[in-house]
Amino acid sequence: MPEIRFNRITGDSVIVATERSRRPEDFTRRKEQRKPPPYIPTCPFCPGNEDKAPPETFRLPAGGGWAVRAMANKFPALSAAGEVRREGTGFKKAIAGVGFHEVIVETPRHDLAPALLPVPHVEQLLEAYRHRFLAFYEDPRIEHVIVFKNHGESAGTSLEHPHSQIVGTPMVPGQVRARIREASRSFDDFGECLYCWCLREELAEGVRIVAEGADFAAFIPYAALSPFHLWIFPKRHVACFGTISRAEMASLAAILKEILLRIYVGLENPDLNYVIRSVSPHDGPVKHFHWYLSIVVRVSTVAGFELGTGMFINTALPEESARFLREVQL
Amino acid sequence: MPEIRFNRITGDSVIVATERSRRPEDFTRRKEQRKPPPYIPTCPFCPGNEDKAPPETFRLPAGGGWAVRAMANKFPALSAAGEVRREGTGFKKAIAGVGFHEVIVETPRHDLAPALLPVPHVEQLLEAYRHRFLAFYEDPRIEHVIVFKNHGESAGTSLEHPHSQIVGTPMVPGQVRARIREASRSFDDFGECLYCWCLREELAEGVRIVAEGADFAAFIPYAALSPFHLWIFPKRHVACFGTISRAEMASLAAILKEILLRIYVGLENPDLNYVIRSVSPHDGPVKHFHWYLSIVVRVSTVAGFELGTGMFINTALPEESARFLREVQL
Repeated sequence: MPEIRFNRITGDSVIVATERSRRPEDFTRRKEQRKPPPYIPTCPFCPGNEDKAPPETFRLPAGGGWAVRAMANKFPALSAAGEVRREGTGFKKAIAGVGFHEVIVETPRHDLAPALLPVPHVEQLLEAYRHRFLAFYEDPRIEHVIVFKNHGESAGTSLEHPHSQIVGTPMVPGQVRARIREASRSFDDFGECLYCWCLREELAEGVRIVAEGADFAAFIPYAALSPFHLWIFPKRHVACFGTISRAEMASLAAILKEILLRIYVGLENPDLNYVIRSVSPHDGPVKHFHWYLSIVVRVSTVAGFELGTGMFINTALPEESARFLREVQL
Repeated sequence: MPEIRFNRITGDSVIVATERSRRPEDFTRRKEQRKPPPYIPTCPFCPGNEDKAPPETFRLPAGGGWAVRAMANKFPALSAAGEVRREGTGFKKAIAGVGFHEVIVETPRHDLAPALLPVPHVEQLLEAYRHRFLAFYEDPRIEHVIVFKNHGESAGTSLEHPHSQIVGTPMVPGQVRARIREASRSFDDFGECLYCWCLREELAEGVRIVAEGADFAAFIPYAALSPFHLWIFPKRHVACFGTISRAEMASLAAILKEILLRIYVGLENPDLNYVIRSVSPHDGPVKHFHWYLSIVVRVSTVAGFELGTGMFINTALPEESARFLREVQL
């Protein structure tokens, strides 16, 4: 009998095919992949073309050659200039599309996805995320900042050179508000952070844990919406990504690289997205929210059922998906 | 300057690229399409193979040859047998996956998408939807029923022969609950159905209307999440699809066929989904909700930004998309 599982954190529900589930290895691509070259002369993100790209906003290391660099997006979704005006009448309600949109080039190497970068390099990438995240929030027009990565065409990448993106919006997105509301309601009920509770239960049960370090744990949520939907939670209760310590940054780099490599090897470099979910640093030490990194491997299709209900159908058992990733030989 | 538009009905927000928007015709596939044959001997939905498919639950016309037929899904997402048991402890919360999942074969012809069917045939298809919708709700274990269609591979179709699906779930999905909550809140504020208000404003403004009949209007919502995201609303305030009259069924068939044909011709047979959103017939004459049919043409990709915020980026102006579809020569 299938099972409908509820995700207490997101409010989502998912039909999990507990009996006739596909084996995790059935989700590998099994198709010939073109290996990109390490350098493409015409790529705007490859070294030597820095002056053709929009002006740089950050680089690491700070000196001459760079490992990671950030710049304005050439085709930004939002406009950096202008005032946050509420507009519209009657049924129409709008805000001027003011905001920031930058690209973070992850490496000079055209061919190295984060899964293949050394851990200290991933740490520099995370430091760039943190720096731009905090910089965006310094502008009083920005209410929310989201860091994300699209890897592969079906995950929405238009440029092959490994890069992440960061967007600052002039309002808190409704979905983010809804999660914070749910978290605060749960805190009121139980007097504990919903995410801390979830992590404690996941660690106690263990079957959905994929990797664990001193500061972070990576697991497939009990009600994962899709196979290999994976969360990395900081063990310390903290609501804002911007407050991550240097030691935690190193821990996060290590676990993120390990997880991405397990996915890369085990599922043969599938398309994926990851995002960092966080409140604003201006919110102070919020007791009910907990920042985390969420990975979605694009092995399933959203169809009419999902669009019409918001429910998902997961054709793999989260416990089996977790075991599969745990057992990948690295 | 881009614009962030709010959808008062769904609570979603969308960044609309008002200046650098792509022209509607840029979304056509521009690729060679294989035209399917009218009949495939091995197709489980083609005539002559009825006995290889699961038992039929409904057919129209009732006699010998059929135009539309419904049957159990061979690989159902939910199990028809069993009791609705709440399960799980602590953080884990689940319901036994009891429910119905049927397939509605839309035509004996393997090659005819609904866009290409005659209007009376589409009317039979809608009648099959209505019949199965009401039949599902007769089972006391069913709390919600969703009718949907996946057309094309990127929209989640696994079988080419034109078919729709209908699923009955043992709980009201969270997204559906959230919309009803929003609608009831708006009714409390304004004393009017949110959907009636929306339709009145859309008809008054006219720029996003694609087609209008005596009983229905089709429009691209002001805050459409993607290009050609389209809604068909009944003009009469009514919360439940199951209460549609025979005359309204004929009107709906005409406007649905017209819209699907405009999309088929104008965008060269793109992949798409449509769903019918409705409350249960057991809810009675709800004042704050309004059933409708929603079409999503799959011309854009959900990426990290959308996953991490629930916001969307629409690279086409809804007003231009509507004009484009209105002006398609049929």
